[in-house]
Amino acid sequence: MLPDEVMETARAEMLNYDGTGMSVMELNPGGPEFLDILTCAENKLRSIMNIPQNYKILFLQGGATTQFSAIPLNLLSEHRCADYVLSGLFSKKASIEAKKYGDIAIAASTAGAMPTFSTVPDVKENDIRPDADYVHICYNNTVYGTRFAEPPSTGSIPLVADMTTCILSEPVDVSKFALIYASAQANIGISGLTVVIIRDDLIGNARRDTPTMLDYKVLLQNKSAYNTPPCWSIYIAKLVFEWIESIGGLEEMKRRNEKKASLIYDYLDNQSYYTSPVDKKCRSMTNVVFVTGDDKLDKKFAKEAAEIGLKNLEGHGSIGGIRASIYNAMPYEGVQKLVKFMEDFRCENPKFDT
Amino acid sequence: MLPDEVMETARAEMLNYDGTGMSVMELNPGGPEFLDILTCAENKLRSIMNIPQNYKILFLQGGATTQFSAIPLNLLSEHRCADYVLSGLFSKKASIEAKKYGDIAIAASTAGAMPTFSTVPDVKENDIRPDADYVHICYNNTVYGTRFAEPPSTGSIPLVADMTTCILSEPVDVSKFALIYASAQANIGISGLTVVIIRDDLIGNARRDTPTMLDYKVLLQNKSAYNTPPCWSIYIAKLVFEWIESIGGLEEMKRRNEKKASLIYDYLDNQSYYTSPVDKKCRSMTNVVFVTGDDKLDKKFAKEAAEIGLKNLEGHGSIGGIRASIYNAMPYEGVQKLVKFMEDFRCENPKFDT
Repeated sequence: MLPDEVMETARAEMLNYDGTGMSVMELNPGGPEFLDILTCAENKLRSIMNIPQNYKILFLQGGATTQFSAIPLNLLSEHRCADYVLSGLFSKKASIEAKKYGDIAIAASTAGAMPTFSTVPDVKENDIRPDADYVHICYNNTVYGTRFAEPPSTGSIPLVADMTTCILSEPVDVSKFALIYASAQANIGISGLTVVIIRDDLIGNARRDTPTMLDYKVLLQNKSAYNTPPCWSIYIAKLVFEWIESIGGLEEMKRRNEKKASLIYDYLDNQSYYTSPVDKKCRSMTNVVFVTGDDKLDKKFAKEAAEIGLKNLEGHGSIGGIRASIYNAMPYEGVQKLVKFMEDFRCENPKFDT
Repeated sequence: MLPDEVMETARAEMLNYDGTGMSVMELNPGGPEFLDILTCAENKLRSIMNIPQNYKILFLQGGATTQFSAIPLNLLSEHRCADYVLSGLFSKKASIEAKKYGDIAIAASTAGAMPTFSTVPDVKENDIRPDADYVHICYNNTVYGTRFAEPPSTGSIPLVADMTTCILSEPVDVSKFALIYASAQANIGISGLTVVIIRDDLIGNARRDTPTMLDYKVLLQNKSAYNTPPCWSIYIAKLVFEWIESIGGLEEMKRRNEKKASLIYDYLDNQSYYTSPVDKKCRSMTNVVFVTGDDKLDKKFAKEAAEIGLKNLEGHGSIGGIRASIYNAMPYEGVQKLVKFMEDFRCENPKFDT
């Protein structure tokens, strides 16, 4: 979903951006109009996330999955050693990809939790190898509905975080991370764009055979335009950044997201028809995972919800169940409608064994 | 530029795609509506380019520049040897990138032509090493305004072609190529999408440390959706493919492009104010390069043209001069307007030394 205000602006400007007579889709990617959009997007993001000046911002293609490769290719030193924290599907994928490029250890994992990944690891500095080039975490686990309540302390070892499904949902202290990356399709805008925020001392050490389009130094030197950037996705991101600024920034975004998440978690906590497998200490604010305890009912729930416009409530294919993704663009009214549907569904579909 | 029909459809469907009540930008990338767009885009492209069944089509991110790395990573065999034909800026960049991964030889080059790259090499089978894993060419050279009139014969060695700025401008015999790739922003649609058309026997041999997002086998097995695809760019491509089909396919596209190119080349050939440095045998049908012979006049030309809506006529920064890119979406009337402006400019800006 995109905020209504963003969609309206995009539609209004679609055939004639800023008096150019052209769509943003038709602007010369090297011309002043698009460069202005790119600069504006970068400045707005820096402002709303309060990104320190010694961090650089890159607007890239390829999704977070491309960063699973780019991170070890750029950040591993000669002895090639990094530690990964396993908290779900994407942290696991990131660690498997990194093994192509170095000696990767699992610093901590909740794969063995019951059910698997229903909580996030309590990472201790002792878990981290002192010679690790970096520690990688996935800050919000989309599939399992968990998140880190705060960044683990990694001492002097750079902390790298995949924030694809939680970036911009609330303020974060960027200085606690060495690198933050996120695909755009959850809270930044639309697919086809990836944002990388990187502390500048980590740039310039890419392995010699790193594909040029994955080399942070080259990408930075060319201001995210070494080749033609994904102009339309960057334009939409700029509109989203402006929207966040207009509503009052990330503090207000957090207030709205907490209010939405509370509505659904409070409901879950006060009935027994639906259960959430997630450890309460690390409940995601953006992905709410729950089950009825009956696979068929879970599927019926998602199907009937879709019929009244509550779409994409199926849990991830790997675990089933139900998942409500309540990203920034989802209004409070959307969550109210969901909770009302949950209650209606509960009444209309009694479980005979309870 | 995008065809007017494409822009109008995109705008009309922007807030409500096919009765879903959602924009294509908001569709679930794994849901049936978007998968239908993806399948439709692939089928239309296969139909209009007459792509044989033993060729696979991939819709990817990262631009042609990412393919400069992906091609050697996927196509080089154990002895890692490939031959590149140098005909301009991008073929040179592709060859430099490939050197990271193997023993790359220059089979032929027109870098030494006067002026540089004003013609394309006459590649002979003898120029190609018999053990080369592939031969790489750039079929249309955007910066220098040249193109191959037909694919060079490489015998049994697979021929790989960057067609970023000529794909879909006319029919090509796909079976003469092993792999064709193109960024989308010239004739396919908008930036943020790259199309790869690959003969299936070349898939599955990627180097072990190939980034997953560059491994053709993984990308194909996941039908271009190993991670979230660039949905909006794929949607625009689908609309462009439908538009090409609706006007009569690539034969009609070629007829229109030849008519546009002839108008401007005929004008160039019948006056002496402007000169084209390009060998007539290999004039590009999509990028027309010419000069006044006076750098200041060239810049004045581009500036004054922009003022009447003829934008982006500056030559590439590396060579200067003037370049008219007359891709598929440029109507005949646009070229008429350009030629009229050329004549007006000639009259109003006499060169005193001629």
